[in-house]
Amino acid sequence: MAIRKGSTLILETAPGVISYGAVGSKKESEGPLAEGFDQLFPDSTLGEETWEKAECRLQKEAVRIALEKGKIKSEEIHCLFAGDLLNQCTSSIYGLREVGAPFVGLFGACSTMAESLTMAALFLEGGFGEKTAAVTSSHFCTAERQFRFPLEYGGQRTPTSQWTVTGSGAVILGKGSSGPYVRGVTIWRMRDMGITDANNMGAAMAPAAADTLERFFTDTGMQPEQFDLIATGDLGKVGSDLLLEVLEKDGWSLAGRHNDCGLMIYDREKQQVEAGGSGCGCSASVLCAHILPALQRGELKEVLFVATGALMSTTAVQQGESIPGIAHLVWLTAGAG
Amino acid sequence: MAIRKGSTLILETAPGVISYGAVGSKKESEGPLAEGFDQLFPDSTLGEETWEKAECRLQKEAVRIALEKGKIKSEEIHCLFAGDLLNQCTSSIYGLREVGAPFVGLFGACSTMAESLTMAALFLEGGFGEKTAAVTSSHFCTAERQFRFPLEYGGQRTPTSQWTVTGSGAVILGKGSSGPYVRGVTIWRMRDMGITDANNMGAAMAPAAADTLERFFTDTGMQPEQFDLIATGDLGKVGSDLLLEVLEKDGWSLAGRHNDCGLMIYDREKQQVEAGGSGCGCSASVLCAHILPALQRGELKEVLFVATGALMSTTAVQQGESIPGIAHLVWLTAGAG
Repeated sequence: MAIRKGSTLILETAPGVISYGAVGSKKESEGPLAEGFDQLFPDSTLGEETWEKAECRLQKEAVRIALEKGKIKSEEIHCLFAGDLLNQCTSSIYGLREVGAPFVGLFGACSTMAESLTMAALFLEGGFGEKTAAVTSSHFCTAERQFRFPLEYGGQRTPTSQWTVTGSGAVILGKGSSGPYVRGVTIWRMRDMGITDANNMGAAMAPAAADTLERFFTDTGMQPEQFDLIATGDLGKVGSDLLLEVLEKDGWSLAGRHNDCGLMIYDREKQQVEAGGSGCGCSASVLCAHILPALQRGELKEVLFVATGALMSTTAVQQGESIPGIAHLVWLTAGAG
Repeated sequence: MAIRKGSTLILETAPGVISYGAVGSKKESEGPLAEGFDQLFPDSTLGEETWEKAECRLQKEAVRIALEKGKIKSEEIHCLFAGDLLNQCTSSIYGLREVGAPFVGLFGACSTMAESLTMAALFLEGGFGEKTAAVTSSHFCTAERQFRFPLEYGGQRTPTSQWTVTGSGAVILGKGSSGPYVRGVTIWRMRDMGITDANNMGAAMAPAAADTLERFFTDTGMQPEQFDLIATGDLGKVGSDLLLEVLEKDGWSLAGRHNDCGLMIYDREKQQVEAGGSGCGCSASVLCAHILPALQRGELKEVLFVATGALMSTTAVQQGESIPGIAHLVWLTAGAG
């Protein structure tokens, strides 16, 4: 039975990770985390006819790899939680249609990996099933044409803009895991600080990340120093600076503990990604290509994974609305604690 | 602790409904369920500047009414599950931004009311909180322009087309309820039978509804006769006929038990809605304006609420894809059983 502390749930059964898969494309293969990916496609079409079909394929492959690595049949998945950035969660719907597992579609923009992992962990903690899966993806070309400009337009990128990761991460949770484990979750609220610039997602999300982290520390009485890594994703450079500034002002220092998935996946100096990486696939693939493997190897012991979402709709922004942010937190631990 | 039977979960604590709100607009006020609505706006703008803002308002009002009727403060909601048809769930995000409750965004197209109610019930059954809420909405004008044609185009409607309900339903679940109760849920898989016509949603969803109902009856060993009402939503006339045909072929008869939210909300003879009502707001408002009140009054005792979703994306359909359907089932009962 989970213990509720404020808005944070401490999971007594500590649902464990059985397996996971990370897939990416060319740009991800040139970044510092390339080695951790299970599959890296040489170009972002993945041999498909459209960018959207390519993104569907990313989710399909991530799930296939996670199932294979865990020697799990798709029939064993008691609930599959997935979502993505595309209108009507196209990548999850069409990418996972053939998996045949009970399906719960989610929308949390770039917070989806934390959202899906949270729901997958709670489903197990509640005793509702034996194995669950959490999946999400993003694709640079589908995101650009949906949220900003068609690539053919050749628009200039602003210094605050982030590069949407072409990648996917899938995690399978269940019994019989030897870790890492999900020890706690904080599902938290939307925050809107009035940002209206679709090229400055980091600023829209930073207040939500700060809000969620403060919630977790206050709820649990724990301190940032108790964690080896506090990984937000994907605030990029602009959002990360803002996050640290906001927290500092409120008396919290993440000094030496914080990193952002959007800063980890690319080399900003060499890869021309402006403020860093973004997209649901950013935190998802950094989780599966870097954080979970490091927890498994014991290089990391206690991690806070805080995926952040800019809940942006082009229709709403065109109608003068600002962009609400949201962040959900998953506390991961190497041992069963 | 929930009992798992196949893919169906029987909820031992039977999370109860504390309160609910149903809001609609002009067309709904002219339909046979008008009396059950808490609020009916005289026109579909709701006094807002855009259709999208009007739809946001629908969710906001439904939640406000449910909170007021239950004498509940929004801070008491431990998790709010919501989603809708609009790109990036615009109506839920902007409509519920100010509620300030921990927020889990969902995407299940028109199955969202069953999906959100399921997640809200499981959250309580798992012991994760004391009160949860489930919300969704739709709006005729936002749906038409997003999925089909701008209204100004004046396109002719086909006989298989359905009229998207301009309405919303919100349900608050929690302890201290005197019913109705959620006794069971079946979260189930996507089904795609190759339908590509965006004006024939009923046919895209009927196989999923049949699949989910057969799953539930097989899992539990229960029979259709044990239920006073088996409410699908929103298959309309075309989808309902298909559902009964598919089930009949497989040896299940819903004779005299079945009705569809899309057939209940409008008078098809008088209201020119072709095959019936549709949209997330259809099953949501029929649930909150008719089914829950009837359970509370004891006129209904055992109900299966099976909201169905056509997981359609215009991008995918333009790229030649068919439309997958999905249906989730919620077993509602008047007494605590």
